[in-house]
Amino acid sequence: MHFPETFLNLSDERFVVHYQVLAANASEARTRTQGICLEQTVELPEALLGQDDLREKIIGRVEKLDEIAPGQYQAAISYAIETTAFEFTQFLNVIFGNTAMQTGIRVLRLDMPDSLLKEFPGPRFGQAGLRWLVGVDSRPLLCTALKPMGLSAEDLATLAQQIALGGVDIIKEDHGLTDQPFARFSDRVARCAEAIRRANSQTEYHCLYVPNITAPADQFFERAYEAKRRGAGGVMIAPGLVGWDAIRLLATDDACALPIFSHPAWLGTFVIDSDHGLSHQVVFGQLPRLAGADATIFVNYGGRFPFSQQDCRSIVFGATSALGSYPPIFPVPAGGMTLDRLRDMYHVYGSQVIFLIAGGLYAYGPDLAANARQFRRQVEALK
Amino acid sequence: MHFPETFLNLSDERFVVHYQVLAANASEARTRTQGICLEQTVELPEALLGQDDLREKIIGRVEKLDEIAPGQYQAAISYAIETTAFEFTQFLNVIFGNTAMQTGIRVLRLDMPDSLLKEFPGPRFGQAGLRWLVGVDSRPLLCTALKPMGLSAEDLATLAQQIALGGVDIIKEDHGLTDQPFARFSDRVARCAEAIRRANSQTEYHCLYVPNITAPADQFFERAYEAKRRGAGGVMIAPGLVGWDAIRLLATDDACALPIFSHPAWLGTFVIDSDHGLSHQVVFGQLPRLAGADATIFVNYGGRFPFSQQDCRSIVFGATSALGSYPPIFPVPAGGMTLDRLRDMYHVYGSQVIFLIAGGLYAYGPDLAANARQFRRQVEALK
Repeated sequence: MHFPETFLNLSDERFVVHYQVLAANASEARTRTQGICLEQTVELPEALLGQDDLREKIIGRVEKLDEIAPGQYQAAISYAIETTAFEFTQFLNVIFGNTAMQTGIRVLRLDMPDSLLKEFPGPRFGQAGLRWLVGVDSRPLLCTALKPMGLSAEDLATLAQQIALGGVDIIKEDHGLTDQPFARFSDRVARCAEAIRRANSQTEYHCLYVPNITAPADQFFERAYEAKRRGAGGVMIAPGLVGWDAIRLLATDDACALPIFSHPAWLGTFVIDSDHGLSHQVVFGQLPRLAGADATIFVNYGGRFPFSQQDCRSIVFGATSALGSYPPIFPVPAGGMTLDRLRDMYHVYGSQVIFLIAGGLYAYGPDLAANARQFRRQVEALK
Repeated sequence: MHFPETFLNLSDERFVVHYQVLAANASEARTRTQGICLEQTVELPEALLGQDDLREKIIGRVEKLDEIAPGQYQAAISYAIETTAFEFTQFLNVIFGNTAMQTGIRVLRLDMPDSLLKEFPGPRFGQAGLRWLVGVDSRPLLCTALKPMGLSAEDLATLAQQIALGGVDIIKEDHGLTDQPFARFSDRVARCAEAIRRANSQTEYHCLYVPNITAPADQFFERAYEAKRRGAGGVMIAPGLVGWDAIRLLATDDACALPIFSHPAWLGTFVIDSDHGLSHQVVFGQLPRLAGADATIFVNYGGRFPFSQQDCRSIVFGATSALGSYPPIFPVPAGGMTLDRLRDMYHVYGSQVIFLIAGGLYAYGPDLAANARQFRRQVEALK
């Protein structure tokens, strides 16, 4: 059958997705790349399309296709910004929706025109805003995680107070603390916020409390508002668990207006196979920033996870390199870090970073406040 | 430091996650498996835990660890149901949150006690409910996709009418049709629902219209309700794009109460590497069903995607095998299927299946209604 001839009044604005495509030869690479152009838009064989705007404007357009190593190609495909319906969910879908079910295709990088960037909120605080909130001008920021799951709200608050007294800038919760019967969200957030407030009044530091609001779809906003009401200084969300659009929505919400920390849970699968999925730069750098996170937590090289130093550098690039009028956001390397890694990490990340050390801080010595003081001393001494 | 001794009043109810773990030898397999138990719960080294309920009840418990091939182990780890906070988001997190960032660990299967199953809604319709709605007792159901992105709402409605006149049971929309300027959701759904209603009144079939409601987090429910109001017979959601909990929430909503079709976009990465991620059975069988979908769309073997026949059979198993009081849901194999594949698919899937043929239906011949009639004739002839 023939589809009706279709002529569309679209802007000429397009965004570009850079893909790595594995193929035996140039001809197969062309076929696979053209397959992406169709799969991500009309989902029809090209032969069914007429000489109209479905073909000319709706399907993806191959802007570039280069062999970069034997059997490995890089394709730049552009899509009309209107295909996204200016929705973050559909934007993700155009990038990689069905193609995620193909082998040997990986999203490397996104290039977006201002016409599309302006449809998403971008980070409200970014690095500068977060620095202002914690009152730290130039050194790396210190962060730890409140844990473990299983402790009572009261016990967690005691730990939080000691950490804040020791001078850690940001206390985020473990992403596994949600609303378990042994430490209900409301009770926990009230107690921890109060404990940190008391500590701040003694130290004159501005320790920021960042509860985890990863939650069911109907409770997510409630928790954000409750966190705000109780005195939290930020919120943490795992977009892998609640969907990327939850960050986007929260970042646009003027009633919450707290810094947002993006957590990597459930997202590892996207990056782990270098022939497939999406790059570290996209998943932990570009996407959180586009959605409006102010800091992106990821697992550091050399800890208990297999990310390489190069992977981590690419995340920093995605989180901080020029992107329309969006501010840079903080990379937050974590996962099995210890105080004796700080100097090495400083050489890689420089000062525009949040060092998140959790298990290593608890394990450092018998007195948690003293451990936190030591963490701060070591970071202040970095140069 | 020492964490405060913690004793918890928990039920003894636990759920079990079966993992495939790659390891060089039995000792490494034990270490990796114990690592999962900690990572997915307390996120602390075991040495920091006391002889209390954090160790005894909160961290995962290895119930079984077997070598099943050289270097390949299967571990069954149980977790207290309370660790999930009875939230679908946190349930996912306990299964695989941070461990998704490790290589060589794959979730194979979930075993859940009724005490946990009852916290999630389960499918409202299941296979029997969907059969009742379309008025088809025993043969495989027919489904096609309304497309492509770029057509006007009016043109899409014309296609829908022809397909419905030809006797297809279910018309779902392409998951890329959201709210683009060239075919707004409201307008499209109103026109297509009306076109299919008119066709049904001529044929006396009960063709079900299933619009795509994959949408931003703040518009998702609005679209579900609008679809319902306009006369849709079901809704389709891509949980990879909006989060699994969106399905769970919609399945509990008595005001919507429409069959839910789960779409696989963005989920492919989880299954594609057989050493990592989650199994096909879990991602396309168990999770949609647990969240409350009534039908699970996935890509068939032998089409333009690399799923094997065995992968597809395992999805059917996850979607239909005994699971508490949950009804079986429909497997919906799709992706490059054509009418000449029907007999082969019937041998694999039997009658309890929805055959989704889209591109292959449009391409079959010049008259779309005739193509649909042919599709129906061929399915009715299967035995």
